[in-house]
Amino acid sequence: MPAVAYGGPDVPADKPSPESVKIAESGVLIEFLADLYPGLLPSDPVERAKARFFIETVGSKFNPGFGALFVKGEGPDVLFAGLEAVQALLPKEGFAIGQWSIADAAIQPFLGRIELYLRSDVGKFAEGEGPKLYKEIFESERFARVAKYINELLARDGWKKTWDEVRSLLAI
Amino acid sequence: MPAVAYGGPDVPADKPSPESVKIAESGVLIEFLADLYPGLLPSDPVERAKARFFIETVGSKFNPGFGALFVKGEGPDVLFAGLEAVQALLPKEGFAIGQWSIADAAIQPFLGRIELYLRSDVGKFAEGEGPKLYKEIFESERFARVAKYINELLARDGWKKTWDEVRSLLAI
Repeated sequence: MPAVAYGGPDVPADKPSPESVKIAESGVLIEFLADLYPGLLPSDPVERAKARFFIETVGSKFNPGFGALFVKGEGPDVLFAGLEAVQALLPKEGFAIGQWSIADAAIQPFLGRIELYLRSDVGKFAEGEGPKLYKEIFESERFARVAKYINELLARDGWKKTWDEVRSLLAI
Repeated sequence: MPAVAYGGPDVPADKPSPESVKIAESGVLIEFLADLYPGLLPSDPVERAKARFFIETVGSKFNPGFGALFVKGEGPDVLFAGLEAVQALLPKEGFAIGQWSIADAAIQPFLGRIELYLRSDVGKFAEGEGPKLYKEIFESERFARVAKYINELLARDGWKKTWDEVRSLLAI
């Protein structure tokens, strides 16, 4: 379970102080970051609701397809349905709600892994299946809008600075 | 799925205008209300994170016990575990994070129904089992803190004004 220790004395990350506040659960953490750094989520209540509905959709409709394809070996159909659900929420241009927000932060680690694993042909599927699925997602009309979104997300400086392909390949 | 229509012209609730924004999913709605009415959630990021962790715990650990006992007839153990998980998060006095917040709004409808259904001996269990479980929750040391919390929540004016026992009994 991801967690952060907030406040308290300056200590190594693996030895959190009992004086700091521990915050766990990815959904709680992402909202916590948006409260600390208001640039991560607009102040307009409707825009905030859109971002949260996107995050909810990622959790309920998109994430199951990741495990189904790469971990359980159940094929790409659930992932494809999740990509379509996400695509249906995207505006014509830009990120999940236009400007980059915590909605994009919620899906970005999964999209980065999907792009990498398919391109590298790594996952619970027959050899050669990865690049075929890669082509189906990144070069078809069906997923044109969400493929553009993925490319734009993965081209951001903040992503490229923290993304470690080798470690991510070893983690699967 | 609960939803609200926000903004747009003044229309009957069952005929939402295409000009209004539709907001769905209970977690999204509850945050939307807190954005519109800041009194429902403190501004301090750590307090907000505590409220959201409480809501997350209600969804993942508490709610499953409600269906298990009243709908599926699987007995009270899951509900008891959920009550203990909620109890462990409660401060010594007051509501989920002290002052009343959306954290309490997330659990209150379930607590109101549990109190009512057990007291009325309504649910998927043998006749007479409801009042026994009621006593176990409201009169034991094991659940003393959460029972106090439930009693205080159900004594609030806002709850008493909108709560309809007859309709809730017919809904199960």
